[in-house]
Amino acid sequence: MPYQTVKGGVCAPAGFLASAVSAGIKNPDAERLDLALIYSEHPCVSSGTFTTNRVKAAPVRVSHAHLRNNEIRAIIANSGNANACTGIKGLEDARTMANCVAKPLKIRRREVGVCSTGVIGLRMPMERITPHGQDLVDKLKPNNGTKVAKAIMTSDTRHKELAITTQINGKEVTIGACVKGAGMICPSMATMLCFVTTDAKVSRNCLELCLLEAVEASFNRITIDGDMSTNDTVLALANGAAGGSRIQRNTKGCRQFRDALEWVLTNLAKDIVRDGERVTKFVTVEVKNARTYLDAKKVAEAVAKSQLVKASWNGNDPNWGRIIHAVGYSRAPIREELIDIYYEDLPACIGGLVADTPLDKLREIAREARFKIVVDLNLGKSDYTIYTSDLSPEYIDFNRSEYAYWNQARKEGMVE
Amino acid sequence: MPYQTVKGGVCAPAGFLASAVSAGIKNPDAERLDLALIYSEHPCVSSGTFTTNRVKAAPVRVSHAHLRNNEIRAIIANSGNANACTGIKGLEDARTMANCVAKPLKIRRREVGVCSTGVIGLRMPMERITPHGQDLVDKLKPNNGTKVAKAIMTSDTRHKELAITTQINGKEVTIGACVKGAGMICPSMATMLCFVTTDAKVSRNCLELCLLEAVEASFNRITIDGDMSTNDTVLALANGAAGGSRIQRNTKGCRQFRDALEWVLTNLAKDIVRDGERVTKFVTVEVKNARTYLDAKKVAEAVAKSQLVKASWNGNDPNWGRIIHAVGYSRAPIREELIDIYYEDLPACIGGLVADTPLDKLREIAREARFKIVVDLNLGKSDYTIYTSDLSPEYIDFNRSEYAYWNQARKEGMVE
Repeated sequence: MPYQTVKGGVCAPAGFLASAVSAGIKNPDAERLDLALIYSEHPCVSSGTFTTNRVKAAPVRVSHAHLRNNEIRAIIANSGNANACTGIKGLEDARTMANCVAKPLKIRRREVGVCSTGVIGLRMPMERITPHGQDLVDKLKPNNGTKVAKAIMTSDTRHKELAITTQINGKEVTIGACVKGAGMICPSMATMLCFVTTDAKVSRNCLELCLLEAVEASFNRITIDGDMSTNDTVLALANGAAGGSRIQRNTKGCRQFRDALEWVLTNLAKDIVRDGERVTKFVTVEVKNARTYLDAKKVAEAVAKSQLVKASWNGNDPNWGRIIHAVGYSRAPIREELIDIYYEDLPACIGGLVADTPLDKLREIAREARFKIVVDLNLGKSDYTIYTSDLSPEYIDFNRSEYAYWNQARKEGMVE
Repeated sequence: MPYQTVKGGVCAPAGFLASAVSAGIKNPDAERLDLALIYSEHPCVSSGTFTTNRVKAAPVRVSHAHLRNNEIRAIIANSGNANACTGIKGLEDARTMANCVAKPLKIRRREVGVCSTGVIGLRMPMERITPHGQDLVDKLKPNNGTKVAKAIMTSDTRHKELAITTQINGKEVTIGACVKGAGMICPSMATMLCFVTTDAKVSRNCLELCLLEAVEASFNRITIDGDMSTNDTVLALANGAAGGSRIQRNTKGCRQFRDALEWVLTNLAKDIVRDGERVTKFVTVEVKNARTYLDAKKVAEAVAKSQLVKASWNGNDPNWGRIIHAVGYSRAPIREELIDIYYEDLPACIGGLVADTPLDKLREIAREARFKIVVDLNLGKSDYTIYTSDLSPEYIDFNRSEYAYWNQARKEGMVE
């Protein structure tokens, strides 16, 4: 453990407050936290990364716009409705969400980030949200981080948060974060929400670079089902409460901050995979010695996304034939006769041919809840690692139908 | 029906003989056809298309080499073992397979195409194959087409063959074909075997062009699970027995032949989807008015391959939100606010927003065993259609494990 973990999630860094309420966004009769607010007592520098899906949810567009010319210092987030494919009214709704906390906080609307996650295509039930604006602000406390992590859950089975402290430039700084995500998870900004808070006094330049690099090494390296969502967002707020001189880009302090942030986000990314919908395995796919970084990435993604490979993992089957077939269609240059495939340290395939490891030894590894597949291309010097899961019959069953919910939503007038 | 269908499959065209035997390739104790031979009494012009997977099975390499400088007039094919990832010995085995029928046929080895389908990574049990060479030749008959179609089945639940007659340049010509394929099905030469025979007197140039275009319009437009196999092969033999002058490239006759071939292969491609592993739906995805042909293709493939879209089809769920989210990540240029999505003729989404079609009307369509999804991008003039299936929990379950079979194979010494 290279860092000291601490409690508190997004409220662990100094000067961050949070609150969450049960607004009944998906179901007015259910009592569960589904609307949350994060607020920094001090002004922040801020940064964000967003889905690369060309169909972008309204809150993604609004948060992106707010970040472009402003520093945000508050985030309002909800689960139960994605506010995606909702057109101009959806944009108005997202702005109204920001406004309903900006007013009681006495800050500008543009200082508030907005994030939503849930069903696509339904209007936000604004009449259940705006009345809670004042309430959210009144309930702000410095120990409510976990409530935020809970309020953004959808098909997640557990809340996911992490906070660490580390020394940068002689000051103790704290980084806290929470994430949600369990389905529609795919590299290129995995389908998820993540909020990062820190009291480190970093420049905006430094924060932007560190966030991009940390997301590339963490959330962009996980895949559960290969489906990229419309709502993926990571927002990072740094309020400088730790003091000291400002950490500038391209300094040792900036690199230390990047490493710490990457460690936090990588651990949360792995948590997302472990909590993937109906997932039974956590599999690390390590591609070694590709000609280029992009080749290694293509091979790792082809293996990690193959339905047949993932089905075999679900069946505890050390089926290297399916792995090499995915390597072959990855479009990366490979030489079949040079490919080695390992389950942990045991060779299943050497030089493109079956290895002589006893099958029951490989089977023992494939039975584990977490194991590593190594694909050595023996062509160059580039490596890439991806974190993924099996694919279970239960996943398909779980995702067969949202019809009943839609039917109910129509009756309630959420569809116009 | 633009063409007259006839019986006989690959034996329907004049001058083609076939045979099949039970060689026990996968299981010596099971009595099922698994080794087949097609032979033309006359010399042929020939052509083939092969998997674009960079991991290529030995028979793919051997058939490709034979076709490069020769005309093949016979095909030996087996199910139960793919002879893939078997190295130099696998190449020797594939050549030996060609040889074991070439000798009794008194033709050169290079006039024989070789095709295998089944498990990856296991040596071919040659001792169960070569003794059948003479037998296959002795049993050649002009009415054994269906036996070939049966002998190449793996997880297929039924054999798939088709033959038609048509008039070209005043001569009646016949085209026959059979295919196999039910899993590892993905565009770019779907995971399958297909043998085409015809008595049309076509030039090699004409046959090559027609085959490429017909495959592009048929097998390259189907996807079941997005996994591209190592063994995909289409072989076409034209023996000219119908007589007349030779049909040259870029003539009306060549276009007529191409149209007829495309019709046969498209129907067989659709048959493959209908018989996909644990498939319950046949879905046509039609993308309209994209900016370019490639954009339309990207969108169609993203929708047809999305696990979440396919799971919703399995659940009879008219979930257009998942369709538009796949359109968004297809990497084709789109404008969200212009996208219309239809189930058959009924709009589910107009201008990127939910349409007012009653949900139960859409549900009725999604319940059908076959339906069409239309995605109208309203951006340009290019269309693309793809044929695909749902994804069922049973598919994953079916593909969980080949372990028991491998274990048995090791005991029998098929792994060295």
